[in-house]
Amino acid sequence: MSFYKVRNPRNGEIDYQFELLSEHTIKEKCTALRTAQTRWWAKGIDYRILVLQDWKKSVLRHKEAIIQALTLDTGRYRESVLEADLIEKSIDKWCGIAKNYFDNQVTKTSSIPFIEVQQSVMPYPLVGVISPWNFPLLLSLIDSIPALLAGCAVIVKPSEVTPRFVEPMMAAIAEVPALASILQYIPGNGQVGAALISAIDLVCFTGSVATGKKVYQAAAEFFIPAYLELGGKDPALVFEGADLDLASSALLWASTSNCGHSCLSIERIYVQAQIFDEFVEKIVAKAKQIKLAHPSVNDGQIGPIIAERQVEIINDHLKDAIEKGAILHTGHAQCEWKDGAYWCLPTVLTNMHHEMKIMSEETFGPILPIMSFKDKAEAIHLANDTQFGLSAAVFAASWEEARQVGNSLKAGAISINDAGLTAIVHDGEKNAFKYSGMGATRMGPAAIQRFMRQQAFLVKKAPIASPWWY
Amino acid sequence: MSFYKVRNPRNGEIDYQFELLSEHTIKEKCTALRTAQTRWWAKGIDYRILVLQDWKKSVLRHKEAIIQALTLDTGRYRESVLEADLIEKSIDKWCGIAKNYFDNQVTKTSSIPFIEVQQSVMPYPLVGVISPWNFPLLLSLIDSIPALLAGCAVIVKPSEVTPRFVEPMMAAIAEVPALASILQYIPGNGQVGAALISAIDLVCFTGSVATGKKVYQAAAEFFIPAYLELGGKDPALVFEGADLDLASSALLWASTSNCGHSCLSIERIYVQAQIFDEFVEKIVAKAKQIKLAHPSVNDGQIGPIIAERQVEIINDHLKDAIEKGAILHTGHAQCEWKDGAYWCLPTVLTNMHHEMKIMSEETFGPILPIMSFKDKAEAIHLANDTQFGLSAAVFAASWEEARQVGNSLKAGAISINDAGLTAIVHDGEKNAFKYSGMGATRMGPAAIQRFMRQQAFLVKKAPIASPWWY
Repeated sequence: MSFYKVRNPRNGEIDYQFELLSEHTIKEKCTALRTAQTRWWAKGIDYRILVLQDWKKSVLRHKEAIIQALTLDTGRYRESVLEADLIEKSIDKWCGIAKNYFDNQVTKTSSIPFIEVQQSVMPYPLVGVISPWNFPLLLSLIDSIPALLAGCAVIVKPSEVTPRFVEPMMAAIAEVPALASILQYIPGNGQVGAALISAIDLVCFTGSVATGKKVYQAAAEFFIPAYLELGGKDPALVFEGADLDLASSALLWASTSNCGHSCLSIERIYVQAQIFDEFVEKIVAKAKQIKLAHPSVNDGQIGPIIAERQVEIINDHLKDAIEKGAILHTGHAQCEWKDGAYWCLPTVLTNMHHEMKIMSEETFGPILPIMSFKDKAEAIHLANDTQFGLSAAVFAASWEEARQVGNSLKAGAISINDAGLTAIVHDGEKNAFKYSGMGATRMGPAAIQRFMRQQAFLVKKAPIASPWWY
Repeated sequence: MSFYKVRNPRNGEIDYQFELLSEHTIKEKCTALRTAQTRWWAKGIDYRILVLQDWKKSVLRHKEAIIQALTLDTGRYRESVLEADLIEKSIDKWCGIAKNYFDNQVTKTSSIPFIEVQQSVMPYPLVGVISPWNFPLLLSLIDSIPALLAGCAVIVKPSEVTPRFVEPMMAAIAEVPALASILQYIPGNGQVGAALISAIDLVCFTGSVATGKKVYQAAAEFFIPAYLELGGKDPALVFEGADLDLASSALLWASTSNCGHSCLSIERIYVQAQIFDEFVEKIVAKAKQIKLAHPSVNDGQIGPIIAERQVEIINDHLKDAIEKGAILHTGHAQCEWKDGAYWCLPTVLTNMHHEMKIMSEETFGPILPIMSFKDKAEAIHLANDTQFGLSAAVFAASWEEARQVGNSLKAGAISINDAGLTAIVHDGEKNAFKYSGMGATRMGPAAIQRFMRQQAFLVKKAPIASPWWY
């Protein structure tokens, strides 16, 4: 047996380990899940909703243990509570959407006499979910809950960086036997993920572009669909006339919450030249008030950098920017090492250009690089000058004006006179642009349907010869 | 310059050639198309419909030349006329669906106060369509027309086996300049197809499983979506109580029309034991009345085998089956060579089992292998015992009974008391199972939407602070 050792993000100690499952064991688990799925699907949506409601109650009973493990996994407490709180809401929301989806299957007459088209669906038997370390619980569930309701069995492999919450989650699942037979969490690293892809019918992956490309290629090799939610370099545009008090508060939050470890974090801010200095002054003043969650996990707002490998990226981007002329207004020129962990305060930079890594590659830290623009055309050009296209934000004097600019932005979700709204508002259907993702939307009824194949029954109701036969 | 030489399927002569475009030329064409697409999208759906209606008229003017070229390409006349006739209907149908789609974009209030969700769409700039030789015209248009209406530019690479229709089609396109800037046909072989995938934003491929897998892997390498419609080994189930006169006529047509060169061709027939002999007798009698389209293209019903490489597959499958005990009731034990071309009459085989290639691999010829089954469970097992899942057919005493069996079949489209209805009825949304395909349905509004990314505008309408900011 081989074990994977896990670092604690608050003190750098190796204080946890888990067993790396063999390819053989993974395949056995997948076979068992796929077998159980037949009954899960056959029992119907009302049954599946009842089971998920039981799961919700069981998660509530294990909530403290889940939050505690998540807090050890990520080094931050507030967001761990938020993640755990969202399970209940998320189960309820998806139960409603799924019920509505299944109750509204359609029958239609076709354009050919005597032939009726009856639509039906059949789920992919086994969905694999490979989830990241930034919101370990939330992002392990965002695909799993709709997939379960669609009638799939689900196997989840969370990031090897944050595996501690798996034990209490599996304890909660074990208390609902009907769920335990069709939902499994397995901790694992990249090798486990690769083995998983060879044994499932559909893969959902949330994580980096580099790994996402590999996942897509593996999915193609095994001829299964891949739904990928990858990185971003989300821009915000601030036009003259915008409410700068609101814009600076929104952008500070959207750039730095969860230590910037969010795919929909604002990572580039563009401000119209006339209001540039005023905006920078406001956001710097607000940024200086944000504190680290140190020494206690209950302090401040910004937790440690969760993944050690992210420290290198953030430091590299900061160093590159400053070497190329960036001016540091507040924050860190390099991540700060304290008691074995790495920290970074909200860091405001100006004098930026697009040859800097911090303006073109995903940084995933609480960094706010700010550039000025002259007019709408330049703002749009700068926002779209990227290999990513996850989300964006526009601030202007009116929502109509901001919305109009948004029409030209190549991104899936665009917040208008606010920022990072996809974290809060889950009612919009969206697809990622460029390298930010691939596949169906995660929101709304389409998020249920993507886990099922549609079937068309073409029903000849009259016993007559068809005119096109020989 | 390098030329590709093309065989005539009616006499085996090399009587046509086309230039193989260089990778550089292909990329230049793609760049030009992508540039023109911006305007095509900006002009709106009503404009695009007008342009497609002009195209329809221009195709009508060139219809005779298109049919003539298609007949040379494929060696059959009747189906060439059918293909050309379908252009007009298809353009009209898709214009209606697209108009309705774009007129019904939604705005909804979100679950968060003061925030409204406005949905929008943005097309993939350049769609590449790689189409096969069995219905060269129809299958070059099935993805192209909805993609054009969605606002994409389109580049089509038809099969190198049937490239003659490209010249008259390009002549028809040239008469509509607004279309000519965003729609191009380029003849080419596999190498041209591979170069194309590196230069487009989305690929639609119709063809074999073997090539489809390669296309999916290339799409993953270039990180673009792939919509694949691949092979089938479609089963038909005939239960006691079914109208055997109707079933035998429907299945003879569905197994042999277009010489069996159709992905939705019935390639396996399973008949309940009690009615097996009666069914075989009826279908053999009808099969014997079908004639080859020889010596004149206007004779009979069955054209030549279009692609020379398919002859080898059909012969190999027939030889393998007969060696393993299949009994030939009518038709050919091997394709017949006449005047440089290869032909195959409707060929009925019994005494089959699933170890024969002809029961497990796609044959793509006018072959009807028939097996018996005892009961519903065995019928469903046999139908699903395949690596494909494109379509299927069920015949029973009532449509309700047949429909109920259909619920257990793993296939995208299931004809009930008829067969091959997807060729005729285009109102059903369906997804392929297993190796038969990948990606969104080709039918209905979803077939328009698959060429666009959805965008969610999350609009904060009130100038207030959001409660989740720091």
